[in-house]
Amino acid sequence: MTIDTHLTDYFDKNRERILDDYFALLRFPTISSDIARLGDSARCATWLRQYLRGLGFNAAIELADDQPLVIAERPGSANAPTVLFYGHYDVQPIEPREQWRSDPFEPVLVGERVYARGAQDNKGQLFAFLTGVAALIASGAPLPPLRIILDSQEESGSGALRKHLPSLKRRLAADILLVCDTGKHSSGRLAITAGLRGLAHLTVHLTGASYDLHSGTHGGVAPNPALALTRMLATLHNADGSIAVEGFYDRLVPLTEAERRQAMSLPFDPGAYQRETGTLPAGGERGLEPVERGSFRPTIEINGLVSGHTGPGVKTIIPAAATAKLSMRLCPGQSPTHVLNVVSEHLRQRVPPGLKLEIANAESHGPGIRLPLDSPLMQIAADVLERMGGEPPAILWEGGSIPVVAALWEQTGAAPLLVGFGCGEDRVHAPNESFSLTQFREALRFSGLFLSELAAT
Amino acid sequence: MTIDTHLTDYFDKNRERILDDYFALLRFPTISSDIARLGDSARCATWLRQYLRGLGFNAAIELADDQPLVIAERPGSANAPTVLFYGHYDVQPIEPREQWRSDPFEPVLVGERVYARGAQDNKGQLFAFLTGVAALIASGAPLPPLRIILDSQEESGSGALRKHLPSLKRRLAADILLVCDTGKHSSGRLAITAGLRGLAHLTVHLTGASYDLHSGTHGGVAPNPALALTRMLATLHNADGSIAVEGFYDRLVPLTEAERRQAMSLPFDPGAYQRETGTLPAGGERGLEPVERGSFRPTIEINGLVSGHTGPGVKTIIPAAATAKLSMRLCPGQSPTHVLNVVSEHLRQRVPPGLKLEIANAESHGPGIRLPLDSPLMQIAADVLERMGGEPPAILWEGGSIPVVAALWEQTGAAPLLVGFGCGEDRVHAPNESFSLTQFREALRFSGLFLSELAAT
Repeated sequence: MTIDTHLTDYFDKNRERILDDYFALLRFPTISSDIARLGDSARCATWLRQYLRGLGFNAAIELADDQPLVIAERPGSANAPTVLFYGHYDVQPIEPREQWRSDPFEPVLVGERVYARGAQDNKGQLFAFLTGVAALIASGAPLPPLRIILDSQEESGSGALRKHLPSLKRRLAADILLVCDTGKHSSGRLAITAGLRGLAHLTVHLTGASYDLHSGTHGGVAPNPALALTRMLATLHNADGSIAVEGFYDRLVPLTEAERRQAMSLPFDPGAYQRETGTLPAGGERGLEPVERGSFRPTIEINGLVSGHTGPGVKTIIPAAATAKLSMRLCPGQSPTHVLNVVSEHLRQRVPPGLKLEIANAESHGPGIRLPLDSPLMQIAADVLERMGGEPPAILWEGGSIPVVAALWEQTGAAPLLVGFGCGEDRVHAPNESFSLTQFREALRFSGLFLSELAAT
Repeated sequence: MTIDTHLTDYFDKNRERILDDYFALLRFPTISSDIARLGDSARCATWLRQYLRGLGFNAAIELADDQPLVIAERPGSANAPTVLFYGHYDVQPIEPREQWRSDPFEPVLVGERVYARGAQDNKGQLFAFLTGVAALIASGAPLPPLRIILDSQEESGSGALRKHLPSLKRRLAADILLVCDTGKHSSGRLAITAGLRGLAHLTVHLTGASYDLHSGTHGGVAPNPALALTRMLATLHNADGSIAVEGFYDRLVPLTEAERRQAMSLPFDPGAYQRETGTLPAGGERGLEPVERGSFRPTIEINGLVSGHTGPGVKTIIPAAATAKLSMRLCPGQSPTHVLNVVSEHLRQRVPPGLKLEIANAESHGPGIRLPLDSPLMQIAADVLERMGGEPPAILWEGGSIPVVAALWEQTGAAPLLVGFGCGEDRVHAPNESFSLTQFREALRFSGLFLSELAAT
């Protein structure tokens, strides 16, 4: 029986137990942006430590600024490269709650899709990877030395891990940093991700009167923070969709010809995009292709807005305050700290008289990265994916961010490899997130085959 | 004993019973914008009908589109002019609830101020008027023929009353329309209000994707409704604060020289404004005095904004939708319907590709009005107020709106007279609304003296 056949059989023969464990993992409501969920993170970390010990790992929970990081290791073939696997067991918030068709933390299998918050991002993908490891161990085949770090805070910027990385780096030292938190190409073709955007965010809070004013008595007299906020935010972009903040594009690295060729070689289907999302790919900068806009260009987005009366009916007030949550996706070269500074300064210069600006939660989650296209590591992964998919994998540049990857690369020296099996239908970060058992099996199979290849080197 | 002495004594001797009734009226949570409160409105109307019957009125509840309007009448001196008193027993919503220091619907007397939603606007002022009527009746002095209409929907535009006015107008026919829903001058000087702005409102709803998108995967690709909404709303005003919507100012009547002289004769103290509100009088159009901006110029205000993630923490999404609630204060000459049309059209022309605009709740609450300054009615009211305050009353033009006044004037022929005793400290429409017993007694005294003067004509 080949390794590949064994991996496939393993899922089918152990399906019930695998799903039980997967569902148990999904039931922990590990929303990292909600401090009240820290206890759930601790319980989830304990569950993961137990699971990893069951696979023969030496596993521990390290509390870093109260964040329970799961760290594990297992020896392997003496001459094989050491693999560090990074995954995160925290998830996004669930709002808008009312749009979920089932409890976000009570997974359900509908057809062959598992619906739950985290079903894909990243509990599903990381658990499929671990199941691949379990299958490989069960087959008796050799594995490379394996180290695992499971983060409790990726969706909130991995602050604790990034801060404590210097003291953890010896335990995480490896040759290869494997991350399974990305996706396939939208055509369904298997893919390697060769780049990620960075992320920084801030909250803009504008206050006027000390209470909501009557819009009749005060309209035309008092300044309106909601009105002023819309006018301030409207100056962040130019009419052509480019960003108007001075210094925002400083030191941005343009894409190379090889990257452009590779990126543009993949089809982008606006019709498919519209069917999937319900909108046109009409955001960002005019005159650039969607692929370039979504992967190689930085953005400023409004993630949330709130001011005044938001309930039913009419309330004729001048709100006392208005708040916007902004996040920025960054590309290699851009310094997240510099970007936060210039955006804050841009807004500070535009506060009208009578209003007070407060900028809160200004935080970097790390810079953007792009990986070399021609490394031996890429070649091994590409070969495995070609065996699985029957064609060479697509090379993608993700528009999203995995905050700690740049820092792990820098601190541990491990060369990143990003291979994931997500697709648009999974609706990560949105209501009714899901992951199909087909995708789960693909991730499991890649994990087993890739580790087995490395063990043989 | 003079009428005036009698009125003052009446409050002191009956203080406990008056406050009991006033508090009972305040306990009904009659928020007209919340359809779920309709039962409370009906209970409040029943209470008011009972109260009026107790004063000897012939009182009834008229259901107009399910809205319980209280209509009452009482005969009076044969040759005196008939007075129609308009008041409203509905109130504004209570959000933000957490800023109230006591239950908005459980009135408390702190020092000499009564705190509750509606303590002033309008339950407090209307009940002080009714208490003046009760005092006058108790004194045995003659009264003019009195008609009363108590509205359940003023804070939501008085739609039912305006719609059913043609069928009610015979029962409401009068010579004088007395409304006690305005305020004193900010200096504390007693005042007659000689103008009101009109009001219209609409809700702007912009939708993009059919669910919140991941801001990494889709940032720079999908259009962002929150970003687009801020850019669209930012085009409503020019940089100088004037309104940029084509046709908005059509047919606006400029203020007369007499009005300007009168309006500008009153001091406006920016320091006092700032102490009261916590902000500078720096809104509206540059280069105009606050009095002109607040009374004689129309406005567009944002009353509420909501989009995407508004809870704690970070959620890196492109929101599926964004909503703004806008209201406009209108001045004489402007047609509310025309204004709603041009503002809607302005927004429709500015929707970026991939987004869908829906304009909802576009509704007029009536045009602005200005009253003649030299009528005999104004003179009688001014004389009474001068007797009370020791100086001629200030003439004010309210920036606020009492939606049905223009319609009542037009349909019943009754000449409006707006005299009220509100002040900034009352914080109407805001948390911790209050009304002082001094103000209550002033309103009571004006009501008694003015009606007694009319009965003697």
